[in-house]
Amino acid sequence: MNFRLILKTLGNLLRVCGLFTVLPFIVSLIHGGEDAAVFAVTTVIMEVIGTLLTLTKPEDKHLRVRDAFFVAGISWVLLSVFGALPLYFSGYFNGFVDCFFESVSGFTTTGSTILTNIEVLPRGIVFWRSLTHWIGGMGVLSFMMAVMPSINASSVNLLKAESTGPAPDKIVPKIQETARIIYLIYIVMTVLLILLLKIAGYPLFDAVINAFSTAGTGGFSSMNSSIAAYGNPVSEVIITVFLFLFGINFSLYFVLIGRNFKKFFFDEELRTYFGVVIVAILIITVNISGLYGSFEEALRYSSFQVTSVISTAGFMTADYNLWPTLSKVILMFITVTGCCAGSTGGGMKLVRFIILFKAAKLEIHKILHPASVKPVSINGKKISEEMISKTALFFFVYFMLFTAAVLIISIEGKDIVSSATAVITSLSNVGPGLNIVGPAGNYSSFSAVSKIVLSVCMIAGRLEFFPVLILFTPSIWKKGAVT
Amino acid sequence: MNFRLILKTLGNLLRVCGLFTVLPFIVSLIHGGEDAAVFAVTTVIMEVIGTLLTLTKPEDKHLRVRDAFFVAGISWVLLSVFGALPLYFSGYFNGFVDCFFESVSGFTTTGSTILTNIEVLPRGIVFWRSLTHWIGGMGVLSFMMAVMPSINASSVNLLKAESTGPAPDKIVPKIQETARIIYLIYIVMTVLLILLLKIAGYPLFDAVINAFSTAGTGGFSSMNSSIAAYGNPVSEVIITVFLFLFGINFSLYFVLIGRNFKKFFFDEELRTYFGVVIVAILIITVNISGLYGSFEEALRYSSFQVTSVISTAGFMTADYNLWPTLSKVILMFITVTGCCAGSTGGGMKLVRFIILFKAAKLEIHKILHPASVKPVSINGKKISEEMISKTALFFFVYFMLFTAAVLIISIEGKDIVSSATAVITSLSNVGPGLNIVGPAGNYSSFSAVSKIVLSVCMIAGRLEFFPVLILFTPSIWKKGAVT
Repeated sequence: MNFRLILKTLGNLLRVCGLFTVLPFIVSLIHGGEDAAVFAVTTVIMEVIGTLLTLTKPEDKHLRVRDAFFVAGISWVLLSVFGALPLYFSGYFNGFVDCFFESVSGFTTTGSTILTNIEVLPRGIVFWRSLTHWIGGMGVLSFMMAVMPSINASSVNLLKAESTGPAPDKIVPKIQETARIIYLIYIVMTVLLILLLKIAGYPLFDAVINAFSTAGTGGFSSMNSSIAAYGNPVSEVIITVFLFLFGINFSLYFVLIGRNFKKFFFDEELRTYFGVVIVAILIITVNISGLYGSFEEALRYSSFQVTSVISTAGFMTADYNLWPTLSKVILMFITVTGCCAGSTGGGMKLVRFIILFKAAKLEIHKILHPASVKPVSINGKKISEEMISKTALFFFVYFMLFTAAVLIISIEGKDIVSSATAVITSLSNVGPGLNIVGPAGNYSSFSAVSKIVLSVCMIAGRLEFFPVLILFTPSIWKKGAVT
Repeated sequence: MNFRLILKTLGNLLRVCGLFTVLPFIVSLIHGGEDAAVFAVTTVIMEVIGTLLTLTKPEDKHLRVRDAFFVAGISWVLLSVFGALPLYFSGYFNGFVDCFFESVSGFTTTGSTILTNIEVLPRGIVFWRSLTHWIGGMGVLSFMMAVMPSINASSVNLLKAESTGPAPDKIVPKIQETARIIYLIYIVMTVLLILLLKIAGYPLFDAVINAFSTAGTGGFSSMNSSIAAYGNPVSEVIITVFLFLFGINFSLYFVLIGRNFKKFFFDEELRTYFGVVIVAILIITVNISGLYGSFEEALRYSSFQVTSVISTAGFMTADYNLWPTLSKVILMFITVTGCCAGSTGGGMKLVRFIILFKAAKLEIHKILHPASVKPVSINGKKISEEMISKTALFFFVYFMLFTAAVLIISIEGKDIVSSATAVITSLSNVGPGLNIVGPAGNYSSFSAVSKIVLSVCMIAGRLEFFPVLILFTPSIWKKGAVT
């Protein structure tokens, strides 16, 4: 491991992300400044420690794949620790573990909370919670690369380690340029959403908060009852549409800007995404129509909930814990699948399901026609055997992490549905599960151990496991063991 | 498809298995003969239809892989239909779907029942239920091959299609010889178990019934409260030990007979099996010790339940639905894993977990050491990339079938735990799940559609998916489409 270069990279990350804490500081000042000091202190801590770390002089400036995976894993933990500082200093949280959980939930765009009353929080803290969603949505290392004046060619490994999906696209040959274009699209869409929510009648502050949470597909809100609190159907439609949009692979927007409509509309993952959303909405609408006054109302709740869950935001306008089993099962299934690779959303990513579905069909085809040699392909591109094998292994790792986490969580004896869905929803970065952790519930009653396990699940899910699994590999911590 | 050869093979299967129905006929006669007629009729039907089918004259005597998979899938459905006849004729069941469910549950050694009172059944029916476990345990095609006077070399494909685990072992070069040796071991162990249970105080009839169910790791009993009804701790220990033994790969017994103790005791799957059982027993014992009078009692219940579930029998001495969440989660996890490949047990088979666990570790190793070329190996044998990929895909197919089945089952609105565990336990051929389908429950309240879906899950699980998935491939049903 190139620990010097790793420390320097982490230093840069802290310096860049430390600047973000200036925003809630300003917001706090505008709203009376109750929590301004906690952000000022955090900014200083992050900038000082960040700068100290950047003083490291690495002899070898090449960031290898293993270093990049290590950086990805450790940087999300580190950022969550520092991001928890304002929450801790504010005094509104019970101890540091709660703050860490909330901060992890923010950066990983999960949106699970241990708070029982959000509306008493000072404005700066509310703003910070949603801002962490926005920062985490597109990836923190990706952001660092977009804003750094110049970067080493080997930094491409950082993007690979942090990006989601089986095969990240480079939309332009230069990696820094790619990161900048993606961020530009992200910013434009966020600003547009803020404007639309403002027009729909939200106060500016609420428009910004909810736009950040929508853009990052996080789910933190400024209200206890989430989006339902506004009782504003127009805003619900706006958020539904944008949640769907933020769940699309951002490189496809670049394709769209290049007027390659065919490539955009024939993208297999996008079509699957659209199809799954429509089918899920229709089935749930029919399934819950008896619970609501009209078909229209059922459709409104159903379409909001489906897009909210599949995009892995986890906003809510209805307590779907009270819906029939079929609807709950569908919502849990799309919690696991998630949306598209390269979006701000989580979950396993639909493209993985497409790859494996085709690979499984091919297995059957091989039994029927042993002589045939037909590869699996997506959007006309051949998928290698190695990629299929890796994708399928991803499934296994998901299952094993799920099992391990549920085993630990269930020690405290909460019911099996709460325990299992808490883990699923953490791994997928959605937020709400069922029963205790359902839309009307929260994570406050979990033990510190469970909160830490769920935090690990959130980071592991966001980074698609391997950067976190590497941190648990004993050999990398031995000096000189991995060179 | 070579449909003529397929029909002939199915005819042979019906003729061979039809002979089994003579046994409950005799048992019935001994016990007054109330249900003797239903078996006599069934024997005649199976022998007549079987003989008619064997009159088919196939031009091509080569049974291809695809034909074998097709035969495997269709023969288990067919046998379950004929096996349901005595139940249907007996008049103790509500309609044919219930009988079919019970028969599938028997042959696939699941042991789920739609009966609410087993003790009122006539002896012949009780005997038949357990006998189906014994027949299904080692595989019906495998049995057919063991008893047929001569078989075609291509019949090896039948064994491949029906056997469990990623890579079935041939223990001797000749396939028919392999089947005969395996059956001999199976019969000897079963007879030994009957004797031991008799010595422990069981009436002969009960000794035979429960030995059949133990040997096939099925779970049907002659008592409503299963093994708990006997209140016989010695018999519980005997059954615990034998459940464990029937969960071991039978080719290892051949190794043992050959006095190759090293190969036996160093088998990685066997060691994992032993390890998982011990760890599960210990954790559950501690977890439930508060519920029982003493640590010894907790240990007794825990060890019985763990071996009963991991061997996928599903017998019970305690209602573990009332145990704490941790214990239930462990039992559900070992329901999914199951025991060893090539045993009479179900589930995904531990060897698959070993392969994938090693493959996942290798992925991490590759990130740390990109230049290293280290293969995955088990018992010193290298596992090919293709095998890893297939094994991982198996996981995906399991997940998708699970999801599809749960979606259909949940339409009828039973709670999510009952719906999900009913599917898991059917796919793994265990029997009891949690809540409604827990140890104290049964499947009587499910709709006919759900019962059929669960029946498909049981057969799909027993045959490890592909022989059943092939039946759902439209192209094979088109004449001449697959040649």
